[in-house]
Amino acid sequence: MNIGIIGTGMVGEALATKLVQLGHAVKMGARSATNEKAAAWVKNASGNAKGASHGTFAEAASFGEVVLNCTSGAVSLEALQAAGPEALRGKILIDVANPLGAPDHGLPILGLAGKDSLGEQIQRAFPETRVVKTLNTINVDVMVNPRAIAGGDHALFLCGNDAAAKASVRELLATFGWKEFIDLGDITAARGTESYLPLWLRLMKSLGTAAFNIKVVR
Amino acid sequence: MNIGIIGTGMVGEALATKLVQLGHAVKMGARSATNEKAAAWVKNASGNAKGASHGTFAEAASFGEVVLNCTSGAVSLEALQAAGPEALRGKILIDVANPLGAPDHGLPILGLAGKDSLGEQIQRAFPETRVVKTLNTINVDVMVNPRAIAGGDHALFLCGNDAAAKASVRELLATFGWKEFIDLGDITAARGTESYLPLWLRLMKSLGTAAFNIKVVR
Repeated sequence: MNIGIIGTGMVGEALATKLVQLGHAVKMGARSATNEKAAAWVKNASGNAKGASHGTFAEAASFGEVVLNCTSGAVSLEALQAAGPEALRGKILIDVANPLGAPDHGLPILGLAGKDSLGEQIQRAFPETRVVKTLNTINVDVMVNPRAIAGGDHALFLCGNDAAAKASVRELLATFGWKEFIDLGDITAARGTESYLPLWLRLMKSLGTAAFNIKVVR
Repeated sequence: MNIGIIGTGMVGEALATKLVQLGHAVKMGARSATNEKAAAWVKNASGNAKGASHGTFAEAASFGEVVLNCTSGAVSLEALQAAGPEALRGKILIDVANPLGAPDHGLPILGLAGKDSLGEQIQRAFPETRVVKTLNTINVDVMVNPRAIAGGDHALFLCGNDAAAKASVRELLATFGWKEFIDLGDITAARGTESYLPLWLRLMKSLGTAAFNIKVVR
């Protein structure tokens, strides 16, 4: 599958690498077509697979049948506007970002918690795009290698307005090793998963590692 | 042990009942000394144990060696002020409340998420009281009977500034059946557990039950 990655940070890089390793053709998009991090990723990734390329946000979005928003939450809307609604029309957009704000007591804070969510903001800004919010409740290493934690016996939340899009995303992420999906409903449930971040941050601090996740037990 | 309960709602009633069943002397406090719900609780509870009594917020706080804030988060500070700083001085105050605000899309919202917490507000208002935030991430039935869910194999978060107070609270809650305590640090970690509520609410909606909890896996 052709996949576009919006963002060149740690999350974008890890997901892009995982996807080329799984045999997908991946274009990493940046603000500039000559972004050095994106170019370096292509150089490193091409040892593993032939599917790595890079370009602008718009080029990555146009390239992908599925597009992943891997930008920092504070700049996600701006980056996606640069990609353009035309390039994103009708496509599945996997929103991995969290709206982390300015640091407070050494930990980032959320600006939207409970009243709105980045996932909803993106869906409102791109009404013809099928936004699926997921992967935003775990560290990047857990995202791409869930079986490293308790054999994968822990939860991945997802939400979005389009049931078929959610089914496709589950199918894609199952190839990463994910097996416990919890569908939280429409995109407004992004309020739930984004609001979890302050607890995730406290857990990371308390456990001394980001290599953890939660499992829902009944 | 003598225990004071601030609040006469479902949470206060369930915790008060559990505590008298465990052999503690419990005084349930209400705004008025003649509160009908508190009087009814005493009448029902006295079949199970002799330790049930009721009175004002101030009487319940004075009675307790340990005091539990079981009021609705929106009125907690007011209720605790009515109990009075004198009655709470030096005592352990277990804060079970969540700062749920006005309904939004059928689900309550949080007003403080990430920037402050009810736990911190209470600790600031009562600097000589040893506030321990806990039990606020599960439904009341799970609070008093954790072993009913996966044999108790799930997490109870707690936080507070006083290590000895946290140790006493763990000891008390172990008698309820709790076994997996996660100490998140000082009272500012209440931002983490209070911010989890929107996810808890979405999970409840999605699972169709409040009889669940999360387990942290590594």
